Amino acid sequence: MLKIIKTEGNARRGEFVTPHGTVQTPAFMNVATCGAIKGAVSALDLKQIKCQVQLCNTYHLHLRPGDEKVKQMGGLHKFTRWDGPILTDSGGFQVFSLAKLRNIKEEGVYFNSHIDGRKIFMGPEESMRIQSNLGSTIAMAFDECVENPSPYDYTKKSVERTTRWLKRCIAEMNRLNSLEDTINREQMLFGINQGGIYNDLRINHMKEIADLDLPGYSIGGLAVGEPTEKMYEIIEAVEPYAPKDKPRYLMGVGTPVNILEGIARGIDIFDCVMPSRNARHGQLFTWEGVRNINNAKYEVDERPIDEHCDCPVCQNFSRAYIRHLLKSGEMLGMRLAVLHNLYFYNNLTAVIREQLDNGTFTEFYNKYRNILGVRI
Amino acid sequence: MLKIIKTEGNARRGEFVTPHGTVQTPAFMNVATCGAIKGAVSALDLKQIKCQVQLCNTYHLHLRPGDEKVKQMGGLHKFTRWDGPILTDSGGFQVFSLAKLRNIKEEGVYFNSHIDGRKIFMGPEESMRIQSNLGSTIAMAFDECVENPSPYDYTKKSVERTTRWLKRCIAEMNRLNSLEDTINREQMLFGINQGGIYNDLRINHMKEIADLDLPGYSIGGLAVGEPTEKMYEIIEAVEPYAPKDKPRYLMGVGTPVNILEGIARGIDIFDCVMPSRNARHGQLFTWEGVRNINNAKYEVDERPIDEHCDCPVCQNFSRAYIRHLLKSGEMLGMRLAVLHNLYFYNNLTAVIREQLDNGTFTEFYNKYRNILGVRI
Repeated sequence: MLKIIKTEGNARRGEFVTPHGTVQTPAFMNVATCGAIKGAVSALDLKQIKCQVQLCNTYHLHLRPGDEKVKQMGGLHKFTRWDGPILTDSGGFQVFSLAKLRNIKEEGVYFNSHIDGRKIFMGPEESMRIQSNLGSTIAMAFDECVENPSPYDYTKKSVERTTRWLKRCIAEMNRLNSLEDTINREQMLFGINQGGIYNDLRINHMKEIADLDLPGYSIGGLAVGEPTEKMYEIIEAVEPYAPKDKPRYLMGVGTPVNILEGIARGIDIFDCVMPSRNARHGQLFTWEGVRNINNAKYEVDERPIDEHCDCPVCQNFSRAYIRHLLKSGEMLGMRLAVLHNLYFYNNLTAVIREQLDNGTFTEFYNKYRNILGVRI
Repeated sequence: MLKIIKTEGNARRGEFVTPHGTVQTPAFMNVATCGAIKGAVSALDLKQIKCQVQLCNTYHLHLRPGDEKVKQMGGLHKFTRWDGPILTDSGGFQVFSLAKLRNIKEEGVYFNSHIDGRKIFMGPEESMRIQSNLGSTIAMAFDECVENPSPYDYTKKSVERTTRWLKRCIAEMNRLNSLEDTINREQMLFGINQGGIYNDLRINHMKEIADLDLPGYSIGGLAVGEPTEKMYEIIEAVEPYAPKDKPRYLMGVGTPVNILEGIARGIDIFDCVMPSRNARHGQLFTWEGVRNINNAKYEVDERPIDEHCDCPVCQNFSRAYIRHLLKSGEMLGMRLAVLHNLYFYNNLTAVIREQLDNGTFTEFYNKYRNILGVRI
């Protein structure tokens, strides 16, 4: 359940209670693919960058170190030392984007590991068992994320199968949560809306999965190459059919502007590798736009990345130092850049929550919807 | 000057006062080659790993970002945000180990940058100017570090030139420290003892440079391939001729056992890339010996790297997690391993200081001289 504190237009200010703590929404989830955020960021760093939720990737952890090993270690919380909420994805997206020679059947997907090529099978039950072993707070349903573009007929059949898979996920999770030795017996399952770029398929699917009364719903299969305007259009199309009292999670999105636009359209939760990935390449987010720290003009610039930022990086280090470190291939450059960018994303949602609390979100939206994307 | 608080055999417990704070000796210096310790460790991390002194490499910083740029940024302290003592090496060792096509003349060394191949000249005056621009607490004299083995005659001529270079270093540093716009006008110069593996050349050279009454002396050109016993023999040979009231620094050494043995022979200060380099490859130092965390037996080991260690890594993370991160190529694995190893080195010298304070160093030495090197 999402407790709605306030709304402004379609934007929602909420509180999402989980067994590992309450998430203030709108919220950004910090992606820790293999149980660690890329850029040498540990659980000890997460509080100071305002992280509320960590997302870990089921596919990666299944391959290495292996979900059964993580279970032996007491689950992801104990393993990574992060005691707040953790969401695991279903593994589906990675199976469809990373794995080789995949073969989709009604029972699930046969594929080869991208690490050592060994044959693996993953279906709804396997995904639930892996996520149960990982002991995450929130598990995601196993779905097929179709390529963009995909023909209407293929997409329709795929969505129908995704619904059948969801029902199998629910049954398997119920079974797992009833077992004595399950790490998190209160694990929650979010359904995933699919349907490619076809509004009618999207809407029908959202209606179907809404009827299943899950603790949360996500919109998947977006930001995979379709125009940004199409993404916004789909969000607008399905939003009326997403349960009001459940959190809505837009998967794998996006830029600060995408997040602002998503919130304006009723999205509560986001995740994206962009802040950490772009940081490692010197693309730093600020309240004035996106700064390319590799630019020669920052060579002797003593100012912080963002003069309006309270993050531990901006409180201590200069643009010149961070630029030097990145140019020299020093890991510390990546760490500082990643810490800043993640703080920026977490803080952006914190500021938006304040705006919603104060009833000033629309004003904020109008001011920042262009600024945040500017290249400076 | 080194204030000697206590001695036990040849081992010395001292205090070395610098313009950037007092160093308790014996001490280990943490190597931040390009102005950052490899492994994503920042100045903000250094206090919690008991770091007293940071060492930066003149050659690397001269090439990138350029020492004049660092001067524009207010010197290394302001640039890296470390406010304790910083020692810069002379650049000599890197010129002789990294640079290509070097040509040694009386005036200095002509060489090609290992980054972009451009021709560079560095002599005693250039080294002093670069280190003055960097604004370090302690500058090292520009010397030639001869290859091992080098013939006696070549080594003898090289040492004579190194002495002539040292006198030019002293003159140039005096000039630089008298200039208004010099960042650290109290910069100290340490002389470097050379002489290859020839005890008589080593002793003669130490006598010559001792006469120049510098604030500190180092022994250079060791741990370059000679047997460890030969290194200890050379330390024992020159130690009686190193001024008692000045810190003695054994450059680029070494394992925990080497450090223990060095201290037992009257050395006060050490530096080495070993703790950070080995950490990145999973070789972790503990009070029971050297642990290879890549070993399969640590796959589900919940214990910390070292059960007797108070470092922030051992207080929080398991062997299994660190092993998983290193195996997955996650930067965080390297950061945690480096933090632990550097803490181990800094703490080792801290514990040895305590032993010296208590008059129990000999007992400690006998107990640990073998244990610390064991592979576990």
